[in-house]
Amino acid sequence: MKQPTHQTKTKSEAQSKAQSGTATFQKRGVTPKSQNISEWYTDVIVQSEMADYSPVRGSIVYRPLGYAVWEYIQAALNERFKKMEIENTYFPLLIPESLLTKEKEHVEGFAPELAVVTIGGGEQLAEKLIVRPTSETIMYAMYAKWIHSHRDLPLKLNQWNNVVRWEKRTYFFLRGMEFLWQEAHTAHAYHDESWRQVLDALDAYAEVYEEYLAIPALKGTKSTAEKFAGADVTTTVELMMPDGKALQGATSHDLGQNFSKSFNIAFQNVKGEQDFAWQTSFGYSTRSLGALVLAHGDDQGLVLPPKVAPIQVVIIPIGDDDQLIEQAQMQRAALERVGVRVKVDTREGMSLGYKRNAWELKGVPVRLELGRKEVETGFATIAIRHSGEKRSLDIATLDATLPKLLDEIQGAMFEKAEEMRQAMTSTVDSYDEFKKVMEEKRGFIHALWCEDPACETKIKEETKASTRCLPLDAKEEIGKCVYCGKPAKHRWVFAQAY
Amino acid sequence: MKQPTHQTKTKSEAQSKAQSGTATFQKRGVTPKSQNISEWYTDVIVQSEMADYSPVRGSIVYRPLGYAVWEYIQAALNERFKKMEIENTYFPLLIPESLLTKEKEHVEGFAPELAVVTIGGGEQLAEKLIVRPTSETIMYAMYAKWIHSHRDLPLKLNQWNNVVRWEKRTYFFLRGMEFLWQEAHTAHAYHDESWRQVLDALDAYAEVYEEYLAIPALKGTKSTAEKFAGADVTTTVELMMPDGKALQGATSHDLGQNFSKSFNIAFQNVKGEQDFAWQTSFGYSTRSLGALVLAHGDDQGLVLPPKVAPIQVVIIPIGDDDQLIEQAQMQRAALERVGVRVKVDTREGMSLGYKRNAWELKGVPVRLELGRKEVETGFATIAIRHSGEKRSLDIATLDATLPKLLDEIQGAMFEKAEEMRQAMTSTVDSYDEFKKVMEEKRGFIHALWCEDPACETKIKEETKASTRCLPLDAKEEIGKCVYCGKPAKHRWVFAQAY
Repeated sequence: MKQPTHQTKTKSEAQSKAQSGTATFQKRGVTPKSQNISEWYTDVIVQSEMADYSPVRGSIVYRPLGYAVWEYIQAALNERFKKMEIENTYFPLLIPESLLTKEKEHVEGFAPELAVVTIGGGEQLAEKLIVRPTSETIMYAMYAKWIHSHRDLPLKLNQWNNVVRWEKRTYFFLRGMEFLWQEAHTAHAYHDESWRQVLDALDAYAEVYEEYLAIPALKGTKSTAEKFAGADVTTTVELMMPDGKALQGATSHDLGQNFSKSFNIAFQNVKGEQDFAWQTSFGYSTRSLGALVLAHGDDQGLVLPPKVAPIQVVIIPIGDDDQLIEQAQMQRAALERVGVRVKVDTREGMSLGYKRNAWELKGVPVRLELGRKEVETGFATIAIRHSGEKRSLDIATLDATLPKLLDEIQGAMFEKAEEMRQAMTSTVDSYDEFKKVMEEKRGFIHALWCEDPACETKIKEETKASTRCLPLDAKEEIGKCVYCGKPAKHRWVFAQAY
Repeated sequence: MKQPTHQTKTKSEAQSKAQSGTATFQKRGVTPKSQNISEWYTDVIVQSEMADYSPVRGSIVYRPLGYAVWEYIQAALNERFKKMEIENTYFPLLIPESLLTKEKEHVEGFAPELAVVTIGGGEQLAEKLIVRPTSETIMYAMYAKWIHSHRDLPLKLNQWNNVVRWEKRTYFFLRGMEFLWQEAHTAHAYHDESWRQVLDALDAYAEVYEEYLAIPALKGTKSTAEKFAGADVTTTVELMMPDGKALQGATSHDLGQNFSKSFNIAFQNVKGEQDFAWQTSFGYSTRSLGALVLAHGDDQGLVLPPKVAPIQVVIIPIGDDDQLIEQAQMQRAALERVGVRVKVDTREGMSLGYKRNAWELKGVPVRLELGRKEVETGFATIAIRHSGEKRSLDIATLDATLPKLLDEIQGAMFEKAEEMRQAMTSTVDSYDEFKKVMEEKRGFIHALWCEDPACETKIKEETKASTRCLPLDAKEEIGKCVYCGKPAKHRWVFAQAY
């Protein structure tokens, strides 16, 4: 629920910039990442055609490149949810106002962000309908109807949908009026089981960030001030971005019996007694696309890890020699047989340089240029997007070497991100040191905190750094709060956040 | 845009019926299909747990069984769209009122059905936002921005999303305030190319109905009165239901240059002249789930064709003998290896009869009961859901026989539906005959019509039958209009419609 700290461009300015069309991007160019990361970020997203501004304030259009990445993420999460026996469903978009107000803390958390339908079929509605900001209330009204006995538990349902939150300042992927996500909601007979579910979901999120998006994920629990409205405990995966700011990757909540008591999700337990269900909810959103852009992109544009790249290898035949194009298509077919996603760029009237820039901008992991010389010698030079490295490969065995190369790239991108994160992680024992690090390089700071919200607030006011999480693997460490000097037991992770 | 002719139950009545929970359905039972198809329909959907009523007027909850069927349909359509080089995207849910009113005929078609957001973030909005009833306007505003040259064409984008239409009377899947669908929108440089796209999409829809849902699909074009607001030509797949009513399965529209002129989707053609894009749009919705239930269901409940059944084979171990359960799990593993979706029902405290009824209600294509006798003899009896037939199969070779049996069932269900459709199709040459058929058995009537909307309106008023389509393969046949006797060239297909 934080405001973004980046300045966003006004829509009209960026729109008029994008108006000039896709064929001129290399003339316009991308603002260097080091110069202005915020401008760089929107330039990359718009010019790579991942997404675009829309005529609706704060809403964006997910173009094929951006949406394809989202579909790979969906598939990876669906696979993991299936193993946990979570089933996909769909619940209504519009929620009667009276339902939303049932859980007090929950409605207070969302009240300022609601979009409200007051007219339907030409008539003023007797009861307003809220465009869902999240689906706890509508889902739990149904859970109360469906759950009666311990035999009905656990109930584990997920939905992939769109939600609307009236954000004042919006930012591609990271903060939008409307975003896409999955929200899973589970109900259990026992708290140890629901807590296990909270952690299993968090593991799945960390896996998808690390194994697909090649971004290291720090798992932890949120402080009381930072937790989800209505949850007993919120767990999170926190990501470090190259500019030293943290990004909350996804959250998984232990809802305890808060909602089951408000919504009367009661069941007869094995002893024949009435009990309230123990609930969890967890969500992963298109925010992750923003993390992907920030973590790996460079001055040439987007850099996609192979596992989420809709095109993994682009082959550019040099010139419009029919034989070369045929060679390229044969290579494409051979690579597709071993599961590589390939595009042959046969567009006419564009220079090789133009095509190189275009595919670099779109973040394609491997580029292969095929000319007469390559066909004659039997060796082609490939360019690796994330490192800029070039290698000469035997054309006859590309279907063996390229799949391995893609795995290698996936691993190397993660390693690079992990090194960056380590370089951006500090442990401090005084508030002076805390402020110095936060001024000089930001990043994650591990510091002892007494867990008094007053210190947390002061630190944030003075350094813009909030508590990101208490890492799940944090050991008890008796010492003094970095801010007030009172006794503290754990090192929390602080950072400025997106 | 027609009103449903079935009476729907009031929500509270059906809800209180559903309140009693899932464990009691066999006591309550499903209304016989022949007795009251409308009650039967909602009974089957709610009791099989495909879907449920929600606390939101006219909106339903897609439960795991219903949503899984939808996911199989999505996969089948995505596969076909990919071959047509249609790419998935996502556009905003909320559309500024001014955009929606740009195409006159279009907005008039949708005006009475709109849900309108007037409050956002606690404040009255300066411009109202419409919850999308369809996305032509928001997409085409972007198309105008993206399309400049013939090199930008064709542009073929699809989105899977939710849309809202304020229907007065709603009915599970067939007519809801909110439904799920895909809407694809393509833009082309030439009309022959866009018309080809209209027909290719229609073919894909017919294939999915026939090959997945086992329902024969009649392809044709709509009359002027029945076409989509803003289209030059609307093509449709029309389905025949067992009660003699037709169901519009999906539509594919030739939009001509109507929208490209309103939205200024102009491009420089190969000759260097300015031209307007030729557009199409086509959509397939969760309405198809209603067709599935109606077409195949029976007095025992749902009947699912194997290709869209989340569970294709259910194995019920008889008794709670550990060895039998182990046998059943081994069979499950063997069948899963050959791609069969299997569930072993090991639930305790439920009779065999209860379990049989439960899986019949949920439409599982094949049921296999495994007891001591079966294990000893090496032969098990399987029950085929759609025909009620029983067969004795060698347990050792189930991984070879069951996949074939599932194919056989898929084919047989289509054949049965095709026989029903033929029995329900009549050709008439007089209006008396027309009325007689429509009173006695309904179904599809092929009749000559002069194409004057006045006759169409009269026929509908007098018989409730509307023109469903002019079949794509209809031959010219010179004769007299069945209603007015004026010259007619084609036999149109008439039916009462859902």
